[in-house]
Amino acid sequence: MVNFDFCTPTRLVFGKGVIEKLPSIMEPLGKKILLVYGGGSIKKNGLYDKVRELLKDFEIFELSGVEPNPKYESVVNGAEICRKNGVEAVLAVGGGSVLDCSKSIAAGAKYDGEPWDLITYKVPVKSALPIVDIMTLSATGSEYDANSVISRMDLNIKTCLKSEHIFPTCSILDPTYTFTVSKRQTAAGAADAISHVFEKYFTAPSSDLADGMCEAVIKSIMKNVVIALEKPDDYDARAELMVDCALACNNVIALGNGASGWVAHAIEHTLSAYYDITHGEGLAIITPHWMRKILSEKTVDRFVKYGVNVLGIDPAQDKFSIANKAIDMTYSFFESLGIPMTLGAVGIDDKKIDEMAFDTAGDGKLANCYAPLTVEDVKEILTNAL
Amino acid sequence: MVNFDFCTPTRLVFGKGVIEKLPSIMEPLGKKILLVYGGGSIKKNGLYDKVRELLKDFEIFELSGVEPNPKYESVVNGAEICRKNGVEAVLAVGGGSVLDCSKSIAAGAKYDGEPWDLITYKVPVKSALPIVDIMTLSATGSEYDANSVISRMDLNIKTCLKSEHIFPTCSILDPTYTFTVSKRQTAAGAADAISHVFEKYFTAPSSDLADGMCEAVIKSIMKNVVIALEKPDDYDARAELMVDCALACNNVIALGNGASGWVAHAIEHTLSAYYDITHGEGLAIITPHWMRKILSEKTVDRFVKYGVNVLGIDPAQDKFSIANKAIDMTYSFFESLGIPMTLGAVGIDDKKIDEMAFDTAGDGKLANCYAPLTVEDVKEILTNAL
Repeated sequence: MVNFDFCTPTRLVFGKGVIEKLPSIMEPLGKKILLVYGGGSIKKNGLYDKVRELLKDFEIFELSGVEPNPKYESVVNGAEICRKNGVEAVLAVGGGSVLDCSKSIAAGAKYDGEPWDLITYKVPVKSALPIVDIMTLSATGSEYDANSVISRMDLNIKTCLKSEHIFPTCSILDPTYTFTVSKRQTAAGAADAISHVFEKYFTAPSSDLADGMCEAVIKSIMKNVVIALEKPDDYDARAELMVDCALACNNVIALGNGASGWVAHAIEHTLSAYYDITHGEGLAIITPHWMRKILSEKTVDRFVKYGVNVLGIDPAQDKFSIANKAIDMTYSFFESLGIPMTLGAVGIDDKKIDEMAFDTAGDGKLANCYAPLTVEDVKEILTNAL
Repeated sequence: MVNFDFCTPTRLVFGKGVIEKLPSIMEPLGKKILLVYGGGSIKKNGLYDKVRELLKDFEIFELSGVEPNPKYESVVNGAEICRKNGVEAVLAVGGGSVLDCSKSIAAGAKYDGEPWDLITYKVPVKSALPIVDIMTLSATGSEYDANSVISRMDLNIKTCLKSEHIFPTCSILDPTYTFTVSKRQTAAGAADAISHVFEKYFTAPSSDLADGMCEAVIKSIMKNVVIALEKPDDYDARAELMVDCALACNNVIALGNGASGWVAHAIEHTLSAYYDITHGEGLAIITPHWMRKILSEKTVDRFVKYGVNVLGIDPAQDKFSIANKAIDMTYSFFESLGIPMTLGAVGIDDKKIDEMAFDTAGDGKLANCYAPLTVEDVKEILTNAL
């Protein structure tokens, strides 16, 4: 085990009907709230009205229309509303994009300059408004981490602000709000969360404990996403996915593991920065090709462990056979969820592969990872994924 | 999954040498510190001198001699030192007993009456001094929970104060401090932690996720305690045990599981309240007999899952055969660690069985558990354990 310094102060309030606690959760944080949401699905399903009704004694400001792969412009707008009106807390209602945007808004609201300074670490985040979220999608795990992924399409940058100040104060997780999530988004969310666990699992050193916990999360996701796709209002399956996804991006499941470099995410962030694709789909497409590329004498035992413990592959085989079978099964699993499994299928051709590979791995950016990749390696992965 | 409201704000600082962070951890909490420790082993191994040296710029008050199964008198003494001297934070250096005592001291210091009012919930805990700990034993998980177990031998009561105010602010976990823990205490600590997981696992409902996480913790403990007993300075084994034990008593590994009633602990707490035995040994002795008693059509599937997934029992058998084999293997495992496996071996005879059974289960205290027990049931368990 490597040394670690771990704390997740976020309160998780989980279950059917827990939204009734919203007023008591917001009360100690302040009376002036910025309500952040996305394209309006919460208006259709009644959640918006419910929130406004519960918070009728609060002064609510609104930022709507937050996009998937949330854009920097929304952060700027939100931070300005907060500063101008003395907003005291941010309430995100939606998926990971809405919450990620809200986190950067919360930090930007307490900073006088451009929020981009914070997002790019030019200026350290020193404080942020308290953040509460009501999740309507199981995917990114933003509800239980300190990350805020923000995109600037003008610069082809999708980058991640990490700061202890942007842990949500409280995440409200009601599985029934995810019943209406489309099959496509349900599958992409599961792929995103599985990838979060892979980024912790394919590394060294790793512990018996972390391996077991990571395997437990992946197995629960793989089992329950299939049920949720078949029966979107299966409470238990949606509940498992909701807790799985919250934990998948939190380090509690991999305490003491070495850093991997989060390489699949690095590649996908470039894809999204150029083409604005669905994050989880990008990850599902890239993952098997990334796995194939990093499979080596050094990494093979990790693939064997994954293959045997998670996928149930018979251990009485040559280890590279098990590893390759595990990679094949990972591909087939994502495909079975209905995820488009080529870059072509999500509208990406070979035109920008050189630029994207350089943006991802140029200047030795992925040279110090558990399984390092060069620009050429990334090009190969992207080409194989076409 | 059942609804839950979960938060563990404690910071875990883990690894060899992390004690160097102690001054920066204490600094924001205050200058006046109550240092709490046990029988003096930290003076022999140099940890006491190290702490005093690191905190030379702080004003240190001391409470030493805290006992295993910490006694209420120590809480009273500690709280008085705090109140009299305006102590601002409590630093526990030792095992779970020292930390449990420190937690009740921290609450008692902020209350004008008898701390017993708080410990028995006559008066709710409204605040507590901040608590930091440096653990020298992997066992109770007090370093990552909000519990404080205190004993009053005059009343034959061993009881548990739970309050969000007594989560440690920070737990400093250096596995090298556990190298010198005796074989007997190492084994008892493992049994204690395994029992914490059993109390979460043998319940309903339980989720795929919680089952997998609980199984991962038990497997890591079972594997690594054997290594640590053989080679007490095996860093990785001691490291796994340290993190296992911290998580074993925290609900993060069983989010959404139904409450079990913590029945084995209820029985052991009575044993300790009458005979002051080592908690982990009491649990190891009671556990197989408790399991045998609660095995039924209702519970058998839990035992099968445990037997197959944790102990590797062949699933192709009749389920009661698997369950009984799992119970036998649990007994044999504890025995293989060198734990005395009868009440007689820890100095308990049949004289007080009636009283102890009534104290544990009288007035329907265990009637609403996952697997309810009557006074007669507890008597049978204790008698079988003689």
